[in-house]
Amino acid sequence: MTPNVAAAKAALSHLELDDNPVSIRAKSRDFFWYSPVLKPRMDHLLGDFVVAPRNEAEVIEVLKVCYAHDVPVTTRGAGTGNYGQAMPMAGGCILHMKNMAAVKSVFPGRVIVEPGCLLKDVDAACKADSGQELRMFSSTWATATIGGFVAGGSGGVGSCTWGSLRDLGNIIRLRVVTMEEEPRILEFRGEELARVSHAYGTNGIITELEMPLAPAYDWVGLFVAFEDFDAALGYTEDLANQDGILIKIASLYEAPCAHSYFQRVAPYVTEKTHLVGIMVAPQSMDGFETFTARRPAAKVIYQSGANDWARDPGPVFEYGWNHTTLRALKVDPSITYLQVRYGYPTHAEKVRTMREALSPEVLQHLEVIRENGKVMFAGLSLVKFTTEERLDEIVRLHEEAGCMIFNPHRFTLEEGGRQTVDDRQLNFKREADPKGLLNPGKMIAWDDPNWGFERIYSYPGMKAAE
Amino acid sequence: MTPNVAAAKAALSHLELDDNPVSIRAKSRDFFWYSPVLKPRMDHLLGDFVVAPRNEAEVIEVLKVCYAHDVPVTTRGAGTGNYGQAMPMAGGCILHMKNMAAVKSVFPGRVIVEPGCLLKDVDAACKADSGQELRMFSSTWATATIGGFVAGGSGGVGSCTWGSLRDLGNIIRLRVVTMEEEPRILEFRGEELARVSHAYGTNGIITELEMPLAPAYDWVGLFVAFEDFDAALGYTEDLANQDGILIKIASLYEAPCAHSYFQRVAPYVTEKTHLVGIMVAPQSMDGFETFTARRPAAKVIYQSGANDWARDPGPVFEYGWNHTTLRALKVDPSITYLQVRYGYPTHAEKVRTMREALSPEVLQHLEVIRENGKVMFAGLSLVKFTTEERLDEIVRLHEEAGCMIFNPHRFTLEEGGRQTVDDRQLNFKREADPKGLLNPGKMIAWDDPNWGFERIYSYPGMKAAE
Repeated sequence: MTPNVAAAKAALSHLELDDNPVSIRAKSRDFFWYSPVLKPRMDHLLGDFVVAPRNEAEVIEVLKVCYAHDVPVTTRGAGTGNYGQAMPMAGGCILHMKNMAAVKSVFPGRVIVEPGCLLKDVDAACKADSGQELRMFSSTWATATIGGFVAGGSGGVGSCTWGSLRDLGNIIRLRVVTMEEEPRILEFRGEELARVSHAYGTNGIITELEMPLAPAYDWVGLFVAFEDFDAALGYTEDLANQDGILIKIASLYEAPCAHSYFQRVAPYVTEKTHLVGIMVAPQSMDGFETFTARRPAAKVIYQSGANDWARDPGPVFEYGWNHTTLRALKVDPSITYLQVRYGYPTHAEKVRTMREALSPEVLQHLEVIRENGKVMFAGLSLVKFTTEERLDEIVRLHEEAGCMIFNPHRFTLEEGGRQTVDDRQLNFKREADPKGLLNPGKMIAWDDPNWGFERIYSYPGMKAAE
Repeated sequence: MTPNVAAAKAALSHLELDDNPVSIRAKSRDFFWYSPVLKPRMDHLLGDFVVAPRNEAEVIEVLKVCYAHDVPVTTRGAGTGNYGQAMPMAGGCILHMKNMAAVKSVFPGRVIVEPGCLLKDVDAACKADSGQELRMFSSTWATATIGGFVAGGSGGVGSCTWGSLRDLGNIIRLRVVTMEEEPRILEFRGEELARVSHAYGTNGIITELEMPLAPAYDWVGLFVAFEDFDAALGYTEDLANQDGILIKIASLYEAPCAHSYFQRVAPYVTEKTHLVGIMVAPQSMDGFETFTARRPAAKVIYQSGANDWARDPGPVFEYGWNHTTLRALKVDPSITYLQVRYGYPTHAEKVRTMREALSPEVLQHLEVIRENGKVMFAGLSLVKFTTEERLDEIVRLHEEAGCMIFNPHRFTLEEGGRQTVDDRQLNFKREADPKGLLNPGKMIAWDDPNWGFERIYSYPGMKAAE
């Protein structure tokens, strides 16, 4: 099966097609370079051309042509994924969704939107329409797309209240086009959503999403400083358990993260400051202040709209989730990260265990999430990278302590997830992408069902560096 | 200290004052008669006159006059309390708040309202203004007032999501007038709210409330039938723990409650049906249906707006909380109830224990509530009443099993609460009601600090039956 790229390009030349090498290079990259493991392995990857369909009919046309000519198709939104989700392992067509960015309808509690719409544009439209916003979004809200978030993300800002994207109710409907001789249009709800959500575009292309909404309040951003890590940990968890205080995010950064990496925060903290970042609904500020006043260890050092800071630190959520890693990387390029699940009810205990074992090589960065109704933590720990062997050892130490790792130094669905094949995704790929042309190399179960997960997956079809 | 009722009436005669015996009798009663213990003790109680101030200045005038003439003042909204909260133990003035019912301002996430406004009218105004509604309300939403709910209630429909009124953030601000020679106007927020919320009007009169709001969705009402109690229990808890499925209420009624007491539901269930009543946000219905389809034991027998029932059963919340007791009482006057706290994490186990020990004499009626971030149950168990001794024994059996009882067969704050003096309320009463004229007999700590709680409190100042 040899791709006929030239024939596909010719057949698609009436669409918005770009084969300028500079564009191709820019649009063949996502944020894989957060990982020192992925960087050398993926840095050379390039698609052969970029096409940006204007509507679903054009998506169908692209898929049909690429199917006919055996050309791989890797779909991308803004390319803000960190697991190499949008990297074209085998070259071919980069399907860029930027032209499909319409907010189609807003209703009480839900929005219908095209996949290429930026998260911030979804929110702007929903707020203008009826004071609503997305329940959750990634910290790349300003640049990432809703389609990319659903296809490549798992949760984020808002998951402290609403849980994760995979939880029932956090995606209502996905409209999907298949990669077949005659592409089909399918509508997925309920159980079927798991076929294509968080599947990296390996088994279908999302052309429309229906997402639940929450009220858009003028969230108050706060930074709260602690000298003691355990006090900060207890404060963060207790706050998230206050049923009457509505928050959008609660993040904890072990010292000296705030002092070392948060430039505009640094003047107001010391190297020993453990920082908690929070966004609180305005109507909950009285409750928040009462809660905080009961805990003398907590010092509110910043409140948006009510502070005398020389330089505005910007939205508090842009310090959380993977923006923490980004800020650290900018200061110290040797920093990378791990994604850890600290599950209820041993979450706090496990955090302490890992901190005792690994700080400061691994600094705790925790995000409050809910899972099955319980407040717990997602760790996006900052790791001082030395070698791949040591990184693997750090992963192993977490796993031995009972902490699940979602390894961001792997580019496959399985390795970045729970290391098991998702049969729903695999079965749907068999049906919807029989030639295996969609985002090749990202689903081990498709390529090599007997893969043992002992070492990083090496996709045989990966384009070689020149 | 002998009240000079005649002088007070004369001084207040320019206000909306009513001393027609029929009115006095009607306005001297709340729903104390739910309790066969309270009924004979309180049935004879009557105020001497009713006054309905039109504004805060008139409230101050009433309090000032009654203070001067040593006349007790018992404040009432709609009189829907079940603990005898609004029963005038020592006669005197019934302060009726019906004329102070304005919704003053609605903002994103909060409302400012006068205390006599009906809960349904608060919601109607907030929905019309900006698609909002109260976070929580009692099942007497259609008839009860917001002031009565805050002064005499603890939570209700919405507490499955937002917790209880006492939780930080669920009341923003209360404006309160004191009962002194020169009444003062105070504004309470934060820690100070605990002085007067759920104080039965014993230490101040609320003249304005600021309450948080949630989005007003067109909630879908559902009844789900089970043959097995444990399956129903597990379903209810699991549903409430779904972070992505937004619900407003989740109630469980042990068989044969639905068949025996829910007249419009009865044709669709059997004597063996355990029923779950739920209200789900429309945007969460797909998630709800997926959740329910995973549990074959669950049969959805009713969905509002999508059913072929001959007679509409009305809002699902009007089957929950204390409307359950009301419906049972109408069919079987010997039914009364208990209010039980089944605390996390042993809530389900304790429900099973009490059911095994006491069913069918005591039928489980559970309401999902959140406390400290955890889903658990409030029990409003239906009790087949025989004698006061047996009722006390049932209370004792619960307490021995580790279930906290809020005894609705007691009229004092302490006995209906945690049997301890709330020093914040007591201290504020000393300051705000030095003569002890506000709702006398309801705060044991004021009357008799050494009371031992071995038996029902007998208020020495209680008006004798004629």
